Amino acid sequence: MTSLPPHIADLMGKPVHDIDTPALVIDLDAMRRNLNRMAEFAKKHNILWRPHAKLHKSATLAKKQIKAGAVGVCVQKTAEAEAMVAGGVYNLFISNEVIAPGKLARIAALVQKVSEHGGQLAIAVDSTEGVVRLAQAMTDARALNGVANVIDVLVEIDVGQGRCGVEPGSEAVALALEIRKHPALRFAGLQAYHGKAQHLRSAQARREAIAKAVDAVVLTRQLIEAQGISVGLVTGAGTGSLVLEAASGVYSELQAGSFLFMDADYAKNERDAAQPQFEHALFVKTQVISTHTHHAVCDAGHKSHAIDSGMPLVHAFDSESELDYFNGGDEHGILRPAAGSQRLPGLGQMLWLIPGHCDPTVNLHDVMIGVGGGLRNGTVQRIYTVDARGAMT
Amino acid sequence: MTSLPPHIADLMGKPVHDIDTPALVIDLDAMRRNLNRMAEFAKKHNILWRPHAKLHKSATLAKKQIKAGAVGVCVQKTAEAEAMVAGGVYNLFISNEVIAPGKLARIAALVQKVSEHGGQLAIAVDSTEGVVRLAQAMTDARALNGVANVIDVLVEIDVGQGRCGVEPGSEAVALALEIRKHPALRFAGLQAYHGKAQHLRSAQARREAIAKAVDAVVLTRQLIEAQGISVGLVTGAGTGSLVLEAASGVYSELQAGSFLFMDADYAKNERDAAQPQFEHALFVKTQVISTHTHHAVCDAGHKSHAIDSGMPLVHAFDSESELDYFNGGDEHGILRPAAGSQRLPGLGQMLWLIPGHCDPTVNLHDVMIGVGGGLRNGTVQRIYTVDARGAMT
Repeated sequence: MTSLPPHIADLMGKPVHDIDTPALVIDLDAMRRNLNRMAEFAKKHNILWRPHAKLHKSATLAKKQIKAGAVGVCVQKTAEAEAMVAGGVYNLFISNEVIAPGKLARIAALVQKVSEHGGQLAIAVDSTEGVVRLAQAMTDARALNGVANVIDVLVEIDVGQGRCGVEPGSEAVALALEIRKHPALRFAGLQAYHGKAQHLRSAQARREAIAKAVDAVVLTRQLIEAQGISVGLVTGAGTGSLVLEAASGVYSELQAGSFLFMDADYAKNERDAAQPQFEHALFVKTQVISTHTHHAVCDAGHKSHAIDSGMPLVHAFDSESELDYFNGGDEHGILRPAAGSQRLPGLGQMLWLIPGHCDPTVNLHDVMIGVGGGLRNGTVQRIYTVDARGAMT
Repeated sequence: MTSLPPHIADLMGKPVHDIDTPALVIDLDAMRRNLNRMAEFAKKHNILWRPHAKLHKSATLAKKQIKAGAVGVCVQKTAEAEAMVAGGVYNLFISNEVIAPGKLARIAALVQKVSEHGGQLAIAVDSTEGVVRLAQAMTDARALNGVANVIDVLVEIDVGQGRCGVEPGSEAVALALEIRKHPALRFAGLQAYHGKAQHLRSAQARREAIAKAVDAVVLTRQLIEAQGISVGLVTGAGTGSLVLEAASGVYSELQAGSFLFMDADYAKNERDAAQPQFEHALFVKTQVISTHTHHAVCDAGHKSHAIDSGMPLVHAFDSESELDYFNGGDEHGILRPAAGSQRLPGLGQMLWLIPGHCDPTVNLHDVMIGVGGGLRNGTVQRIYTVDARGAMT
């Protein structure tokens, strides 16, 4: 973990007002409620949860989640796994394919490290070549340090995302058999994440998408078990669909990560009745730097929040101050009164943006400033470094 | 400037092949040609150039530009100015409004620092309040260190961007008069940048937009000069329109920055005949990690390149290998054969993406790896740190 620059460290205990803009701010009370709701939900459904650390990229927040009941965290990149291990997180699943021999060597080294701490590393595969290369890296590591480690390997099946993953069925069986040829690899189950289902607006559309995913998993599991191979784990689900995977009786682990902060985009989904009431907990604090007759300009553009899932919402403390945010480029946001509202903010006024997509927003920042006691009158109580910021290899 | 992590520093002298993915790579030969073309262009038109460092955020590249003839660089943020000064760049223009007293105090401190090195700091304003606050910060700094520094102040006029800037005409005159009330401020001219004109596809539409901007500048300049105030500098222009401002006889300084790397987006503009032949010089190296019947997946998503100006182009070494890139989320890109092409890349294959927008792409990375001798067989010859990465306050 990086040490904090003095002007950031000095914020501890200071009022919200003192946070310079733009800055990434966590509403600690809302985050705590989200975490508790997720822990309760998983308990109630008797399902494991392994939140995706690609959201917050913070070892401290990962440990907080594990303390609340998570079995570990997911990461998407080798370098993210390294940042988590460096920060003391030892139960990790790289829910992605890795092909580069250099990266696989780093992963084999991480297996050794986490095992020294009683932890476990798992990884996804979707090709024979990927399995063979992973096995080679494990063999090379064993030759180097003399320890016969084993890595958990999950076969990724494409359950509707259209990205990585083999087709459900026989291709997955072949891969499971391939994995079992290599003593340093342990076939641990199926990775079956349906990314596209997360953002389907209608609850019915999400139900249909996840029902198909469940069918694909069931079919694949039966075929693998017919080979006398046990499918230990079925892992998947995001914040948009988690109630469906949890109720499926087929998924054994939820990977949802966004629930902790809640993207503006997720708020656009028609809510499933069973969905816990997750709240927006991540904000970009911004200041108005220029005012005009029909618009104002704030100092947060898309270098301070990601816009891949649309523009941020402007948090309104009352209905009169409702504003719409328009893209003003890398460093600016254009603000106009929302329909039914009149008031434009004044020069110097502070505003709070709810990012359209939290994961890539966090990746733009070095730190997340945790505020307790509310965004209006709270104080800075925690500062989390984005340990895996830009850890993209 | 940050010191390089060992696995990055070790790349010096190594072949392109050794660069782990995803990574931001500069084609040094192409960048050198772009820089020379810009220097020649400015010389030929007898116009100053002050490239925008918001593109590369690198003090080393800023100094390279100054060595090639630039009078200094523009920045958009106080923290970017600080990063430039820390890296030895002492001629800076903050082409943006700053309102927070804390930031203005930092700017006053920077004025002292750059003047110690014979440099100069300038800033844009678009409100009386902004002028008064800036003057106060300069007065406070003088009280603190006993030195009577002066900061150059440019009045920003809105020439069609619809973002910051006062209306051309009397509002600008009033601001120039306000600036002259404060002994620590020197009215230095007009900031007249037309951001929207940069991406108008038709050359004719750009000509019309910049013609209007020129009219607005001429009107405003006449009104200010009628008050007996000299308008020293008229600064503006981006890579999309610079030939027009250069030919205007009204603009005295070009702010274009993107010419150095050339966004994929700029390649979509109908080229003006007078425009220098700038080449794409910035790439994201990426690897194929998953292959399928009709698509392949690479390891670069929108956490490694910005997509605010569209998806990246895939650099093709020959017409058979032309690929289209589709959004695969934060960490993945989906690749399909382009129209008229057949071939999908194989597992493990390296590809080169041309970012839609270079500025926010650079901001996602810690380093830019400079390759000489071409992307296929070249070697790593320079490594530039993104000094002002995430310097957003």
